[in-house]
Amino acid sequence: MGVVISLDEGKQRDASVKPLVENTKADMERVNQLILSKAGSDVAMIPEVANHLISSGGKRLRPMLTLASATMFGYRGEAHVKLATSVEFMHTATLLHDDVVDESDLRRGRSTARMIWGNQASVLVGDFLLGQAFKMMVEVGSLEALDVLSTAASVIAEGEVLQLSVAKNMETTEDDYLSVIRAKTAALFSAACEVGPIVAGVSKAERNALRSYGMNLGLAFQLIDDVLDYGGSAKDLGKNVGDDFREGKITLPVVLAYRRGSESERAFWRDAIESGQTDDAALEKAMGLITKHGSLKDTTARAEHYASIARDALAPLPDSAEKSALLEVIAFCLDRAS
Amino acid sequence: MGVVISLDEGKQRDASVKPLVENTKADMERVNQLILSKAGSDVAMIPEVANHLISSGGKRLRPMLTLASATMFGYRGEAHVKLATSVEFMHTATLLHDDVVDESDLRRGRSTARMIWGNQASVLVGDFLLGQAFKMMVEVGSLEALDVLSTAASVIAEGEVLQLSVAKNMETTEDDYLSVIRAKTAALFSAACEVGPIVAGVSKAERNALRSYGMNLGLAFQLIDDVLDYGGSAKDLGKNVGDDFREGKITLPVVLAYRRGSESERAFWRDAIESGQTDDAALEKAMGLITKHGSLKDTTARAEHYASIARDALAPLPDSAEKSALLEVIAFCLDRAS
Repeated sequence: MGVVISLDEGKQRDASVKPLVENTKADMERVNQLILSKAGSDVAMIPEVANHLISSGGKRLRPMLTLASATMFGYRGEAHVKLATSVEFMHTATLLHDDVVDESDLRRGRSTARMIWGNQASVLVGDFLLGQAFKMMVEVGSLEALDVLSTAASVIAEGEVLQLSVAKNMETTEDDYLSVIRAKTAALFSAACEVGPIVAGVSKAERNALRSYGMNLGLAFQLIDDVLDYGGSAKDLGKNVGDDFREGKITLPVVLAYRRGSESERAFWRDAIESGQTDDAALEKAMGLITKHGSLKDTTARAEHYASIARDALAPLPDSAEKSALLEVIAFCLDRAS
Repeated sequence: MGVVISLDEGKQRDASVKPLVENTKADMERVNQLILSKAGSDVAMIPEVANHLISSGGKRLRPMLTLASATMFGYRGEAHVKLATSVEFMHTATLLHDDVVDESDLRRGRSTARMIWGNQASVLVGDFLLGQAFKMMVEVGSLEALDVLSTAASVIAEGEVLQLSVAKNMETTEDDYLSVIRAKTAALFSAACEVGPIVAGVSKAERNALRSYGMNLGLAFQLIDDVLDYGGSAKDLGKNVGDDFREGKITLPVVLAYRRGSESERAFWRDAIESGQTDDAALEKAMGLITKHGSLKDTTARAEHYASIARDALAPLPDSAEKSALLEVIAFCLDRAS
C-alpha cells in the first residue's frame, strides 16, 4: 500500500496539501476522536496495536478526501465523519494485514505491529478494525455508501491476491501492474471520494466525477510512491530506498527497465526479483539500470497522465474551496517525487 | 473455531440433524450455488483457496440455521439465501485467519490452506470472502441485518484477540473462557439465527427468541467441541485427540481440571500449557487428570445447561417443521459427545 506522508517533509509539498488540511481541520478533529473511541476495547491488546499504527504520524489523506468530497456539495451533517473514519480503518486494517503478508519489519521507520505483537495480533486487530468500519457505515445507514465501500473491500483484497500471483514474475506487463494498483490502492481512494457526494445526496454526475478523481489520484499516488522507493530518502518516506527491490516487489520502474533492457540485463532482473539476489551491490546495479532506461522519469510521466485525468474529472464542478483543495492535492501527490 | 461435523458420522447424530437438512434442502442448493459463484474471481488463486476450504465437507450448520430461522416465519423471498451465504463466508474467512493465527497444519484431516498456499493467501482470501459477504448483505438491503452481522464480525475478531490474551495463562477463569467462546463462536450462531426473523419482518420478540437460541446453541456446540478434543477420535472430528492440548489451548476441561487439582497437578498444567511441555506422555497425564476431576462430564453438563436455555428460548414460538428441526439440532450438538 502507499505510504502516507507526514506533514514535516518539505515546504513545497506542504503548501500543496495545506488547503485540504485547513479545509477539513474541524471535521478531522472529530474523525480523530472517533478513531480513538472506535479503536477502543476492553481487550487491552486491541487499542495497543491499533494506536501503534494510528499514532504513527500518517497524514490521513483518505479521510480528508471523504470530508472534502461531502462538504464541497454543502453537506453539513454527521455522516461524512463516520464514513471518513471507516475509510481510515479500512486503510489501517489493510496495512496490518499487508505487514503480515509482506513479512515487513519496519513501516515509516518504526517497528511494525507484527514485530511487536506478532502476526496473530496483526491479523485479528485488522479484522476487528474492519468490523468496526462496517458497523460505522451501517450506522450511517446509506445503502449506496455501503455498496461502494464493501465493493472496495472486496476489490482491495482481490488486488492483494493478484499482487501475490504476479509477485516475482518478471513477465508482468504494465497492464498487469496497473490492475494490481488500481485494486489495491486506487479503489480505496476512489471509494473515499465517492461516498462524499452520496451522503450529500447530489446527482450521479457529481458522484461519477469524484469517483474518477479518486481513482486516478490513487493511481498517480501509488506510481509516485514506486518512484520514491528508488529515489527518495528514508527520512522523507519512513522507509529506505530500495525496500521494494529488496522485497522482490515488482513496480512500474522495474517493469519498464526490464522490458527495455538487453538480454543480460533481463537475466539480472530475474536473478534479483525471481531468485532473491537483492544485496546492496544488486540494488546499486538496479538503480543504474533504472536510470539508464529512464524508468523513473517515465513512471513519473505515467503518474502525470493519471493526474491530468483526475484534474479533468473535477473540471465541470462549480468552484469552491474544497474543489481548489482537491486540485492542489493532485500537485501534492506529484510533487513528492520532485 | 468449532469444527464442522460431516454427515457420515453415526446414526444417532445423523438422525438429530436430519430434519434441518431435509427442511433446508432446496434453499441450501441455492446457497451452495451462490457460494461457488461468489468465491469466483479472475484471480485464479482465490477460487482455488476458497474451494479448498468450501469443499472440505463441512455440514454448513450455520447457513442452515439462517434459512430455517427465516422460513419458520413463512418467509418466501430470496434474502435469506444471500444472508445464509454471507454467514458461511464470514465463517470461512474466520477459519482461514484462524489457521494463520494458530499456525495449524491440518483442518478436518486435510492440509490447511496456509500449508498449501502460504499465510499470505490465507489472510488475503479471508479478507476477500469477508468483503464478498458484506457485498451480499448490502444487496439484501436490510440495515437491521447489516447491523447484526457487522456487529458479529467485530465481536468475533475481538473474541479472537481476547483468546490470544488469555492463551497460555492458566489463571483463566471459567467466566473468562465463556467470554471468549461467546464472542468467537456463539456470536456468529446467534447472528445467523437472528437475521432470519429480521428478513421475515416479524416482531422483536421472535427476533430475541432466535438470537437467544443461537447464542446458547453456539455455547453448547463449542463446549462439546472442547470435550471431543479430549475424547473423540480423529476420524469423527477431522482432528486428533489432544490437538487443543498440543497447541496449548485453554478450554473448559482444562480450566476445571486445573482449578480442582492439587498444587503439583497445577504445576503440571503450567508446564504443559504455559511452557509448552505437551508431548505424548504429557497428553496421557492430562487425560488422566481430566478424567480424575470429572472435567469432561462437567463440561458436558455445562453444555446441557446452555442447551436447555436454547430449548426454552424457542418454546413460546408456534409449532412448525422448522421449530422441530431447530430443537432437534440442539440434541445433535449434545449427542456428538456421547
